[in-house]
Amino acid sequence: MEREFQSTLLETAVTELSRLPGVGRKTALRLALYLLRRDEREATALGQSIIDMRRGIRYCRVCHNISETDLCPVCADPARDASTVCVVENVKDVLSVERTTRFHGLYHVLGGLISPIDGIGPDALEIDSLVERCTASGTVVREVILALSPTMEGDTTAYYIYRKLRAAAPAGGPVVSRLARGVAVGGELEYTDELTLGRSIDDRRPFDQ
Amino acid sequence: MEREFQSTLLETAVTELSRLPGVGRKTALRLALYLLRRDEREATALGQSIIDMRRGIRYCRVCHNISETDLCPVCADPARDASTVCVVENVKDVLSVERTTRFHGLYHVLGGLISPIDGIGPDALEIDSLVERCTASGTVVREVILALSPTMEGDTTAYYIYRKLRAAAPAGGPVVSRLARGVAVGGELEYTDELTLGRSIDDRRPFDQ
Repeated sequence: MEREFQSTLLETAVTELSRLPGVGRKTALRLALYLLRRDEREATALGQSIIDMRRGIRYCRVCHNISETDLCPVCADPARDASTVCVVENVKDVLSVERTTRFHGLYHVLGGLISPIDGIGPDALEIDSLVERCTASGTVVREVILALSPTMEGDTTAYYIYRKLRAAAPAGGPVVSRLARGVAVGGELEYTDELTLGRSIDDRRPFDQ
Repeated sequence: MEREFQSTLLETAVTELSRLPGVGRKTALRLALYLLRRDEREATALGQSIIDMRRGIRYCRVCHNISETDLCPVCADPARDASTVCVVENVKDVLSVERTTRFHGLYHVLGGLISPIDGIGPDALEIDSLVERCTASGTVVREVILALSPTMEGDTTAYYIYRKLRAAAPAGGPVVSRLARGVAVGGELEYTDELTLGRSIDDRRPFDQ
């Protein structure tokens, strides 16, 4: 055998597909053969949609969320409350918070979390732009909600941002808050880990609120 | 929220990706966001390779294996033994048999197995073309190896083909054989199911062969 697949076109498609996260060469071959069995129209639509998406999507100048325009739809929406900024790790988290329909402010997408083990320092993230956005003279931002994962990286990043905001606006500046930690809705106390249960006691709220 | 993803381009890519087998909308979104983070060159290469593959690959006129030309590389290779035809379910099985490097004949790809439950009858498969290929006057085919999965569908299909070949060439025709069934190489008797173990006794071979 000279070539694994007897076809350079198949070989190339399998190689490109296997670059996707979680897709090995076996899965890539399965996907390629599936696409070969489908309408040419369907396979072309998939290929073209990937190309169009990568070419057409850029990042919002203000919040760094994905956008097809200079300003993303959230930042451009005059009905949103520009005084509250929700800081998230990535674009997916924007979608998660939007799905709750409980947040009406704007976002700031960091593009990751501080993680020395992975070589990600604060400079690789959109932290300076956040501090500038929330403490510059004339800013309308009154509250910054740190909606980061309650992991070591998330906590480290939140603390770093908190310190930066405080340092940049010693005389006041925006209120900095974080997500409540506690028992999951619908979850049972018995199966809640003790750290979370402990935090849910620390974060307890008056019953009538 | 008017749109789930705030971007039609992302929405389209996620929809197209989620048509792939085993890819739900969550995975499709993960893949799309991954591609957004990569070089435009890499995402474009993936999209283009899918389009090129689907446009450029057709099926071999003789064996129905995938091919970029009228005749696939195996059928076109004069060094292969044209007197032996290995019948397989699909293109993947051609690759599996080729990897053994133990087969030097040609292939015939059925494009599936007979499965009444899935509405796949013999007419949907390349069975008539196989029978024609192996029994027409002037054929060089001397042996047909039925390399189908030892499942109900595989056995049904094999038996159907066997009958068809016999009916088309009552006075002789090619020898019809099937793969041996037995203990997997490196497998332990203790963990071999009793049906397979039974077949390995039926299919036993002289020790010195």
